[in-house]
Amino acid sequence: MNYVFPPAPQASVAVHGSDDRLPVRRIFCVGRNYAAHAREMGKDPDRDPPFFFTKPADAVVESGEAVAYPPETENFHYEAELIAVIGTGGKNISEADSLSHVWGYAIGNDLTRRDLQLKAREQGRPWDFGKAFDRSAVIGPVFPISEIGHPEKGSITLTVNDDVKQAADLADLIWSVPEIISILSHSITLAPGDLIMTGTPAGVGQLQVGDVCIVSIDGLGSIETKITPRES
Amino acid sequence: MNYVFPPAPQASVAVHGSDDRLPVRRIFCVGRNYAAHAREMGKDPDRDPPFFFTKPADAVVESGEAVAYPPETENFHYEAELIAVIGTGGKNISEADSLSHVWGYAIGNDLTRRDLQLKAREQGRPWDFGKAFDRSAVIGPVFPISEIGHPEKGSITLTVNDDVKQAADLADLIWSVPEIISILSHSITLAPGDLIMTGTPAGVGQLQVGDVCIVSIDGLGSIETKITPRES
Repeated sequence: MNYVFPPAPQASVAVHGSDDRLPVRRIFCVGRNYAAHAREMGKDPDRDPPFFFTKPADAVVESGEAVAYPPETENFHYEAELIAVIGTGGKNISEADSLSHVWGYAIGNDLTRRDLQLKAREQGRPWDFGKAFDRSAVIGPVFPISEIGHPEKGSITLTVNDDVKQAADLADLIWSVPEIISILSHSITLAPGDLIMTGTPAGVGQLQVGDVCIVSIDGLGSIETKITPRES
Repeated sequence: MNYVFPPAPQASVAVHGSDDRLPVRRIFCVGRNYAAHAREMGKDPDRDPPFFFTKPADAVVESGEAVAYPPETENFHYEAELIAVIGTGGKNISEADSLSHVWGYAIGNDLTRRDLQLKAREQGRPWDFGKAFDRSAVIGPVFPISEIGHPEKGSITLTVNDDVKQAADLADLIWSVPEIISILSHSITLAPGDLIMTGTPAGVGQLQVGDVCIVSIDGLGSIETKITPRES
């Protein structure tokens, strides 16, 4: 079979402690999953079913890579997140079976054009331009569960130029990883290489050109992103 | 380089009059682009900048393939659309240069879980679960511009079991293909294999199990989808 032009390069991320790469298929993100963050976004952290948005696989940036301040925003935000990486696909997965579909975990920074997201929210429009732009998904090396198991607690922190901006505990997730996987898999079919960003704690805020943003999670090390000037 | 598990299969669509395949990278969809459809969705067809939502590449279904009634909806809709296929990537593309980035055109059916989309709209939440689910993008064979040029007018129609449900003219697009490409490329970087679904005319409505839905556009033939029972 011939393609009329070359397919897109396969998006992938590093595997911790190995030269292997993990292919990235899709990126699903939970909307609000820490009560204090829900409140800072003006929402009640109720137990309504969680909601999801997506980013394209080719938005992936790895730790240490610079990210240029993106176009069309004047309010560019960081969001520290734990990522669960699907290794075995499936649909209608029960909560009890969910963790057997996870290959590993990584740290993520869900970069957000907050002004575009808030405008979309206000107008009842899609969030894609606020969330799914170029280089909007910083993803750390993936730690296989053989190495770290399934983290259920432990600190998640984010600093900007060494100032702590977000600090919470994974135990504070409103929806647990098994619940998220089960709910998501009842709406779409999960596949190997799907990443699930599990939501961010309170303390979101702006990034400026020159900032260095570091996200750390107990047991998963840390990831670093420097913000460089907007490209013309 | 080794991947820890096989990458996702490359999504692709047929090329008209050839055995070649066109690799699909991402799918961008214009929200409301025919005035009568904007009105039927309860919105004013003003000239605010257009907005976009996305579907993942692996949601592609080709003409003749069955689509099972999707989960989590009781209000599953068709939407006939003209698709512009990007062959040459770029960002900040001017309207005057836009058409030189187009490889060809195809017919699309933007399958929609309308109840989930309307609930998201009402709640200010992301549209992804209403729009970006499994097998939600029916895409016809791509006609290269060498064969059909750049269609600016001509009928677009959709039938369900031979009843005409949508009938309009491509000349009625609020935002033209060059305008859409230019606006989109100022927000994200376009790449070869990106598909742009240009919006649907008035007359959207429900699909039921057993329905045969056909979308036709002058010069681009037609595509057919049969709705089969929901999978367990």
